[in-house]
Amino acid sequence: MHKIEIEAGVDILALNKKIAKENRQFFKENNIKAVNIMGAIGSGKTLLIEKTVEKLKDKIKFGAILGDVVGNADLKRVLKYGIPAEVINTGKECHLDAHLVSHCLDKFKNVDILFIENVGNLICPVDFDLGETLRVVMVSVTEGDDVVEKHPEIFRLADVIIINKVALADAVGANIDKMISDARKLNPKAKIIKMDLKKDIGLEEWFKIVEDLVNQG
Amino acid sequence: MHKIEIEAGVDILALNKKIAKENRQFFKENNIKAVNIMGAIGSGKTLLIEKTVEKLKDKIKFGAILGDVVGNADLKRVLKYGIPAEVINTGKECHLDAHLVSHCLDKFKNVDILFIENVGNLICPVDFDLGETLRVVMVSVTEGDDVVEKHPEIFRLADVIIINKVALADAVGANIDKMISDARKLNPKAKIIKMDLKKDIGLEEWFKIVEDLVNQG
Repeated sequence: MHKIEIEAGVDILALNKKIAKENRQFFKENNIKAVNIMGAIGSGKTLLIEKTVEKLKDKIKFGAILGDVVGNADLKRVLKYGIPAEVINTGKECHLDAHLVSHCLDKFKNVDILFIENVGNLICPVDFDLGETLRVVMVSVTEGDDVVEKHPEIFRLADVIIINKVALADAVGANIDKMISDARKLNPKAKIIKMDLKKDIGLEEWFKIVEDLVNQG
Repeated sequence: MHKIEIEAGVDILALNKKIAKENRQFFKENNIKAVNIMGAIGSGKTLLIEKTVEKLKDKIKFGAILGDVVGNADLKRVLKYGIPAEVINTGKECHLDAHLVSHCLDKFKNVDILFIENVGNLICPVDFDLGETLRVVMVSVTEGDDVVEKHPEIFRLADVIIINKVALADAVGANIDKMISDARKLNPKAKIIKMDLKKDIGLEEWFKIVEDLVNQG
């Protein structure tokens, strides 16, 4: 939903910042690492969560918040692993915000890693800190190899950039090196992972990031 | 950019409606058919415009407005066909609106078909009528076969629904029939086209829609 801007009144981004700070405090007190996973529709966000939980669930206690405009298809996919999970339907909103996330934090008090899957697009989630420990942006080569340069802000602020579906690069004529070089120019510090979830490419590198996150205390 | 909502003040959607009406009047007076092409990142919107112009440019006078957060890569792709074209960079905005479009209409007075490529996502453009004659929503099977059911509003309001990259359905494990059935349930009247732009599948059906639009007077 699109709203109006006026001089007076509440600054929605400042309010979000305040609540994000409270979420961050909650995560710290409960020793939870929150991972905000952003990315376009169909980039593989839910499958990344599924594969990670499947692989590491004996070592790490996971939870998941699934953001979507409508429906609970993603929730069902994650619940089958027996982890605590919650869907947030945003209606017409194109992103999660700290306030929406704060509403369902109580059920995740005992997890080590809380995945927060944002609503699928590369524009709107960027302004909304959720209080997360780690910011992940996931794109796939099937979105076109200009997808990184076209959405600079979200890549600039990421800790981890995942380029998924690399096994399809030839089929769609995408230049992976260009995507990596675009990402590197925008964000020299981020970890960049070439991945193909369906072919098990790049997963070990990602699992290590998740394990290190838990072990860093 | 995300803004605040208050009781008083300007209703941005009502204002958009008013300007959309003016755009529609402009299109009518100048005998222009405006085609609002919406769809996720990388769904093939620009390539659809390119292929259509390439095929029909001897019969039909085309123009194009390309909406993107930043950059003019799409503009360059279209300009090489020698048609009038304009980029609209929305900055942090996730959709075009009637006002942005109205600013650059003068240069398109002499076209038969004006393609307006919206910003790449399936959530935000839905509320903003641009004054268009035809609403097209384009998705690709690589976005996952749940992409239609997850974004009902945009499909409900479409005149034409294009499901692109069908040749990749097996490679990504997408069920095209499910996508079509989801679309049909949401929108019994829309024309639904199975397409693969890179394999020239479904294009004839689309060209016919474009030609009929011009000929309907």
